[in-house]
Amino acid sequence: MRVVANKYPALPNEGAHEVIVDAPEHWSSFGQAGTQVAADVLRATRLRMLDHRQDARVRYLQFFKNNGPAAGASIEHIHSQLMALEFVPLQLQLELDGALRYQARHGNCPFCEEIEAATGSGRLIMANQGAVALAPYASRFPFETWILPRSHESHFEATSGPVLQAAADILGRTVRLIEREMVTPPYNVILHTAPIQEGPLSYYHWHIEILPRASGIGGFEFGTGCYINAISPEEASARLRNLSSRGSG
Amino acid sequence: MRVVANKYPALPNEGAHEVIVDAPEHWSSFGQAGTQVAADVLRATRLRMLDHRQDARVRYLQFFKNNGPAAGASIEHIHSQLMALEFVPLQLQLELDGALRYQARHGNCPFCEEIEAATGSGRLIMANQGAVALAPYASRFPFETWILPRSHESHFEATSGPVLQAAADILGRTVRLIEREMVTPPYNVILHTAPIQEGPLSYYHWHIEILPRASGIGGFEFGTGCYINAISPEEASARLRNLSSRGSG
Repeated sequence: MRVVANKYPALPNEGAHEVIVDAPEHWSSFGQAGTQVAADVLRATRLRMLDHRQDARVRYLQFFKNNGPAAGASIEHIHSQLMALEFVPLQLQLELDGALRYQARHGNCPFCEEIEAATGSGRLIMANQGAVALAPYASRFPFETWILPRSHESHFEATSGPVLQAAADILGRTVRLIEREMVTPPYNVILHTAPIQEGPLSYYHWHIEILPRASGIGGFEFGTGCYINAISPEEASARLRNLSSRGSG
Repeated sequence: MRVVANKYPALPNEGAHEVIVDAPEHWSSFGQAGTQVAADVLRATRLRMLDHRQDARVRYLQFFKNNGPAAGASIEHIHSQLMALEFVPLQLQLELDGALRYQARHGNCPFCEEIEAATGSGRLIMANQGAVALAPYASRFPFETWILPRSHESHFEATSGPVLQAAADILGRTVRLIEREMVTPPYNVILHTAPIQEGPLSYYHWHIEILPRASGIGGFEFGTGCYINAISPEEASARLRNLSSRGSG
């Protein structure tokens, strides 16, 4: 029998994996740790990204946070992780491709438009001077929440201190709301940002996704890439806004 | 503020969701239920698919099985599910696109070649006259196993009775091996087959994927679409073959 294994292309295999200890105190909940810890984490992440950018082999940096064993966490003390990859991963490439197609068709950054659309359709959760939190259209998970800078920014690491501080404030407060509403669910936080060696992109806009994992991921999701979500983004954002107005945010 | 929500396209929203009761007996493990139950399930699935094909709105049928609560199962009694969708889902479209590109570059069906490649590189788990089980190249999960008909078949529902019986035999035996090796892990079984209203495709080959869920899906996986797997497909298939030769398969 002919061996055809050598037709598979070699995969890039250099990179880095860093653990960011969010705070010296042994918090086990990011929401309880407060907005200053969130700001420290985003600043540390930016510093590490700027350092990795010096290495021309690094094409993408994936920041993520796993909270709770069911969301993949193996350490209790609050922490984040950063992966430096030699390739632009599929999930980000699909988002970049989709955003470029949207811009070609409608003329604008789809994320800037989503901020407007969410505001107009009751999916805005909270906002401050520099950033917003919204329940995205076609949310995959109950209480899925995205945090975006109000200004158009494709690269997280190029974002100014005040905007980063504003995003951290929104991040800390929304995670706290979600932890209260869902009674400390497992969740992931991920950052999607433009590939690190590229110049500014008019069609892409960095954002942080909070993905609560109350519902399992089963065969339907793996088979199709579609997610079943029984709570609409309008209802999720109304419930979080209501909790916030009662003074829990 | 301008409302742009109406730029989002309407999503198709007709379909069907059916639960297939695998056997009248209250087995809670598909592997223990045996190969005859596997054959009954595949035959029932084919019958339901042929029925749904009469409805021109149905473009894809997703068969799946969730085993264990951590894999999304909400019923203990062994069962399978079938979803009729009005669209070809993203995950399948990516596979179809990739297979077409592979064929354009190399001339053959990539799945036919993967059967040869797995045989040549120690990733074959078992085979009979009509089907094989293999640990796929770049497996996402420890002990991920794919079952394929040996002959080139793009459409599951068009497959002959003897080939289906051969695939069911391999399916029942490999699930049993995986349940023993991993001590009854949560797992999903999914079927990937060509869109139901299309004619035969020379570049696509239906297959069943068994996805054991020993490792969690965390922020890295959601952010990138890449999976971290600490057990190579060569080691996984060797361990399953070894277990099989000791008479457990």
